[in-house]
Amino acid sequence: MIEAIGQNAQDAARELAAASSRAKSNVLLAMADSVDARRSEILAANSKDLEAGRAEGISDALMDRLLLDEARMDGIVAGLRKVADLPDPVGVQTGGWRMYNGIRVSRTRVPLGVVAVIYEARPNVTADAGGLCIKAGNAAILRGSSYAFASNSEIGEAMRTALAAEGFSQDGVQIFPDTTREGARALMQAKGYVDLLVPRGGPGLIAAIEELATVPFVIDGAGNCHVYVDAEADLEKAADITMNAKTRRPGVCNAAESLVVHAAVADKFLPGIAARLSEAGVELRGDERARELVGSMGAATEEDWGTEYHDLIMSVRIVDSIDAAIEHVRTYGTGHTEAIVTDDISAADQFVQGMDCAVTMVNASTAFTDGEEFGFGAEIGISTQKLHVRGPMGLEALTTERYVLYGDGQVR
Amino acid sequence: MIEAIGQNAQDAARELAAASSRAKSNVLLAMADSVDARRSEILAANSKDLEAGRAEGISDALMDRLLLDEARMDGIVAGLRKVADLPDPVGVQTGGWRMYNGIRVSRTRVPLGVVAVIYEARPNVTADAGGLCIKAGNAAILRGSSYAFASNSEIGEAMRTALAAEGFSQDGVQIFPDTTREGARALMQAKGYVDLLVPRGGPGLIAAIEELATVPFVIDGAGNCHVYVDAEADLEKAADITMNAKTRRPGVCNAAESLVVHAAVADKFLPGIAARLSEAGVELRGDERARELVGSMGAATEEDWGTEYHDLIMSVRIVDSIDAAIEHVRTYGTGHTEAIVTDDISAADQFVQGMDCAVTMVNASTAFTDGEEFGFGAEIGISTQKLHVRGPMGLEALTTERYVLYGDGQVR
Repeated sequence: MIEAIGQNAQDAARELAAASSRAKSNVLLAMADSVDARRSEILAANSKDLEAGRAEGISDALMDRLLLDEARMDGIVAGLRKVADLPDPVGVQTGGWRMYNGIRVSRTRVPLGVVAVIYEARPNVTADAGGLCIKAGNAAILRGSSYAFASNSEIGEAMRTALAAEGFSQDGVQIFPDTTREGARALMQAKGYVDLLVPRGGPGLIAAIEELATVPFVIDGAGNCHVYVDAEADLEKAADITMNAKTRRPGVCNAAESLVVHAAVADKFLPGIAARLSEAGVELRGDERARELVGSMGAATEEDWGTEYHDLIMSVRIVDSIDAAIEHVRTYGTGHTEAIVTDDISAADQFVQGMDCAVTMVNASTAFTDGEEFGFGAEIGISTQKLHVRGPMGLEALTTERYVLYGDGQVR
Repeated sequence: MIEAIGQNAQDAARELAAASSRAKSNVLLAMADSVDARRSEILAANSKDLEAGRAEGISDALMDRLLLDEARMDGIVAGLRKVADLPDPVGVQTGGWRMYNGIRVSRTRVPLGVVAVIYEARPNVTADAGGLCIKAGNAAILRGSSYAFASNSEIGEAMRTALAAEGFSQDGVQIFPDTTREGARALMQAKGYVDLLVPRGGPGLIAAIEELATVPFVIDGAGNCHVYVDAEADLEKAADITMNAKTRRPGVCNAAESLVVHAAVADKFLPGIAARLSEAGVELRGDERARELVGSMGAATEEDWGTEYHDLIMSVRIVDSIDAAIEHVRTYGTGHTEAIVTDDISAADQFVQGMDCAVTMVNASTAFTDGEEFGFGAEIGISTQKLHVRGPMGLEALTTERYVLYGDGQVR
């Protein structure tokens, strides 16, 4: 099965790689119309998914992610239209020069080929990820959760109909039919068929990919993000940034999990922010010194420092120096986003130079690590690896480059 | 052992990542001097390696690769000096803008951290690869062949002495002591210690890495490169390019392995080039039509089309159209370098657009796929993968990027 799906995707990818920017925009717009026209079928399929999920007793949070309603359908349709309007990354010349012998060298962005996405029970990802792949000239193989299979299949059909209507192979988008673990594994090992695998899921999925994948992948990994409040911090800004980073959306990867406070400002800063966080429902787990300042705080264990809670929980540590803060963050951070709040330019510089992560924030919330906020228009994920792409991944992350050399008979 | 080596490398990498461009240049120059000063020790160690190799009966080709003499030592020293003078890729800002809310975004090139290189019995790679890693601000773990261990150790010591003399940890360069397969495997799986693994070796090494590696790697893969002689080719240029691509250095990856000729020019082109190639010692293996034109030609099997000979052998195929040529190349090519010879602009364009490889040559020899020729000053390898970097890899391939966002208290 994987061979047939993979070959169909490769064939479709070759066609899409040659498509003009306008033709791809038109496909995206047709997809938006097609999803819009198929609303009632998609919502009916979603009801089936929800019903089956309810029968299986899945959690409220999962049910919410799975749910489609008119507003979310509007969002999906608007999202596809927005991607249609993004600048095409393909064909952009990223370098060029003449060699000593007159050969002209050019380096140009080209599509990757076939992009596979493995994701959780959020049917909107089907349209978002599929749309981005097509816009960048790739074919997409989309393997969502079994819980969302009916919804995904309907959305996929709408997208395939649009591809066909615009004169492309409908296999530019394929909903991978096997939603079992074996299915995911087959996709991870579809060497020669899959040019990039993007996992959007939890640590279990990431670990499976790191162990099993033989196709190239980009890890959209954990975000154990820190906010460090320096001795020279503006404490009002520090409080606002901490609140925003922790409570805006605690379930996303750019949320802060840990608050590191310089001892020089701990007694002024910590009681106030602890009260605000508690009021917002955040459970705090601190080291001994933090607990001396805030009696209601629970005790943090070694495990807490390394945990991405994805929840209204935050660990709190007091440090005696910026060096100690940097060491703490480097030891427990996951290379995603780290923030310092300070008015001291040399502290800011020292922190920035000391980090080894995708994004470092100086006096800004960790929540800004996001493709939309970065101005990429859309996001396929956030890379926590160092190769290929680091940080928010937009359309460029779905391309590669190639060289073309024009000569006149030159030999070496 | 791998833990200690890995941790030492990580510590050294952190120091090197913070080093100025001048400090790194000075290290490279000191390394050149140090290798130069240690010539007699290095040549003595090399004699031991050669003696042991002779006793084990290794091939003449391998003995030649292993050999160091005064001229090659000059080359190593000059190579380090040249790398010292290359522009520093680190610190270059590769992007920057202001967000809607005033946050300033900058994207900057930074070192990867620890780069491990696994390579064959060529002691010069120790200096070349080690020097490039240091220049890009990385620590290097160098695991060469057991046959070259004494030579590599002496060269490594010279480099380590230079690092220490310039005030850096000598663990910026480490010669990996375990030259067994288990040693290579430990390095491939040193997750958390190795940020990039670069294999420089044959298909066996590549296959092992694809199967076993858990650290990030860039494949420097096979080059089954083609020269396609179009119906509209200038046949004199076609002959020169074919000769150069095949015979200049048949053992390297940018050498052509296969000649594809349009039927319209086959009878004019093939007998002449076959004679020239044969005269240069090249064995030809052709399809039936080619053999009708050149009686002395052997028969190519299906296996021949997919073989990178690394030798004075070339497969020959006659096709009836450029489409057939493109299909042949896409089916059997390895994504390295493909060349077309033609005076027809639309044929050139069709061929270029039809390729899916790192470098496409129009009227130039495949031999130009090379970091030095590209102007990169030096080369750590040639990537045949699509992620991170494609084609010749210079210093930039040994870096990653990171974002720093400067705000004034912004929250989302």
